[in-house]
Amino acid sequence: MQIEKTIEWVKTGKTKGVSRMIDQTLIPYEYKKIDIDTTDKMYNAIKTMIVRGAPAIGIAGAHGVVLAAMESLGEKNFKAETIKKANYINSSRPTAVNLSWAIKKQLDIIKNSTEPDEKIIELLIENAIKLENEDIEINKKIGEYGSAVIPKGATILTHCNAGALATVGYGTALGVVRSAFEKDSTIKVFADETRPRQQGARLTTYELIRDGINTTLITDGMSAYFMKKGMIDVVVVGADRIALNGDSANKIGTYMVAIAAKYHDIPFYIAAPKSTIDATIKTGEEIVIELRDRSEVIEINGKSICTSEVNVINPSFDVTPASLITGIITEYGIFKPEDLYKIFE
Amino acid sequence: MQIEKTIEWVKTGKTKGVSRMIDQTLIPYEYKKIDIDTTDKMYNAIKTMIVRGAPAIGIAGAHGVVLAAMESLGEKNFKAETIKKANYINSSRPTAVNLSWAIKKQLDIIKNSTEPDEKIIELLIENAIKLENEDIEINKKIGEYGSAVIPKGATILTHCNAGALATVGYGTALGVVRSAFEKDSTIKVFADETRPRQQGARLTTYELIRDGINTTLITDGMSAYFMKKGMIDVVVVGADRIALNGDSANKIGTYMVAIAAKYHDIPFYIAAPKSTIDATIKTGEEIVIELRDRSEVIEINGKSICTSEVNVINPSFDVTPASLITGIITEYGIFKPEDLYKIFE
Repeated sequence: MQIEKTIEWVKTGKTKGVSRMIDQTLIPYEYKKIDIDTTDKMYNAIKTMIVRGAPAIGIAGAHGVVLAAMESLGEKNFKAETIKKANYINSSRPTAVNLSWAIKKQLDIIKNSTEPDEKIIELLIENAIKLENEDIEINKKIGEYGSAVIPKGATILTHCNAGALATVGYGTALGVVRSAFEKDSTIKVFADETRPRQQGARLTTYELIRDGINTTLITDGMSAYFMKKGMIDVVVVGADRIALNGDSANKIGTYMVAIAAKYHDIPFYIAAPKSTIDATIKTGEEIVIELRDRSEVIEINGKSICTSEVNVINPSFDVTPASLITGIITEYGIFKPEDLYKIFE
Repeated sequence: MQIEKTIEWVKTGKTKGVSRMIDQTLIPYEYKKIDIDTTDKMYNAIKTMIVRGAPAIGIAGAHGVVLAAMESLGEKNFKAETIKKANYINSSRPTAVNLSWAIKKQLDIIKNSTEPDEKIIELLIENAIKLENEDIEINKKIGEYGSAVIPKGATILTHCNAGALATVGYGTALGVVRSAFEKDSTIKVFADETRPRQQGARLTTYELIRDGINTTLITDGMSAYFMKKGMIDVVVVGADRIALNGDSANKIGTYMVAIAAKYHDIPFYIAAPKSTIDATIKTGEEIVIELRDRSEVIEINGKSICTSEVNVINPSFDVTPASLITGIITEYGIFKPEDLYKIFE
């Protein structure tokens, strides 16, 4: 059973609609969709990772601007109020560029439109739905290009969840897996648990096993062991922000996997849409790394795993330098990091 | 507050005694000692990791032979029966060589003694207590030698627990930390969580914070991030079996840390007693890696973290090749891997 759209704009009854999303904090224990109908709720849904994954929070941002406009309707300064609320949503998480990218797409409509406010809201909804549909199409293209680098019968290592649940559907890194699986059902996946939030254990195994893909869960310290044993053929992960030189921010732990892959001469690919590339930054040094709450490290399922007196630093992402990346798989093809700038030409 | 002896032979009432040990599966939730008085219980205590850590399970093995002899007293084939039960205990865990090392020390007494059986048991108890006391002395020497490689104000990264709880007391890798701390209270420790069994989160932070040492818990995917930021000065870990060429088996995840340390040009040390060196094997290729139950990966505190249909492979150790090891800190000094054979000269 395929997972339904992770996030989508749904017209409900008399209202203009709501943002309906899978609550990813409940998976794998419960599969539940919730409706987000205010900007405050959207801010919190992104912040608390009810919706997560760079492309998915991009769509959440686009929906958030619709909600901002709906809340601002009737205000004298409709546009200024909407922009203010949009900027608030944009501040929910700093690292994934897709959030600001999608919000900017929506704000461009607001800034450039001379239509009545009601009509602007309709345009924002139209654009949000267009972005949703494009996301799935983009991921299928990423999958198609990426599947070419997956050898027959390969075992693919992935970290965190860059799957259907990180996007509207199909996934980026897991889009590559899905596309490869459509052509060769003998491929296998090794999924890193991805502490602290265990997106690999909770989300990646959940969605891949629903699709019938042979999936093995390993802890984050194990991948080098399996690389050394020759059991990993290729690494494919997603990204949250990619600098122009190819340096790629992704979930904490990705950098260690990339170093281990290089050490074992195993190809390491990033799979991400063009919207994840931040053309305003030259290198990964400029990427802001989100620091999250200590509770994510010292508690699992609400239970403490250690003495409470311990210090914690909880960076949510790390940056894998271009020198460790074999290629960046996009909807425009696969780029070597040094050629990535050409995607804007 | 220092932790009491992790494991010790205690004479109780009218009996010849029992093996008293901290139940490490309960820490940090509960601090409780249990008495092991049969070989079956000892086998299970080692297997289920009530007692763990290479030097500590060595002592557990020595105690186990005493229990084996006590159970065999009165049998016609006292020596043969004792050896049979000792071999059973030796089969509880395959990777840490200290277990077979200590059992062999005891069996040598049995084989070489012409004393009455009762007297042999006394000799075994004496020898077990001698091994206990030597363990602490050895660890203090390891600490003293090792502290010389810890720069002033350094932050030391460690993986798993090679502390007081992994030994009779003081610790190997954490013995180095303790000795460095005695000389310079500004040193800090970063402790890897060490999934699947979280010995870093549960045990290392527990014992270091009791000693007043500044300790930060990180997840296993984070260390390279902190290395890149210049926040880790040196890595010190324990070992479960070291080949003659210096290849070192230690808790799963150690190998990834070693690769990351090499990539960032950070010194990486193994701290272990001579008894952890297996002179019968030339390289790490010969080390048997224990595979443990899937429940360790997919459950935390008894609660599943993922879909039950996932595959799991759970290697408990990995081998760090000598080429990634700066030095091996022993009670006889610090050896470069290529010079390790000299410890037997």
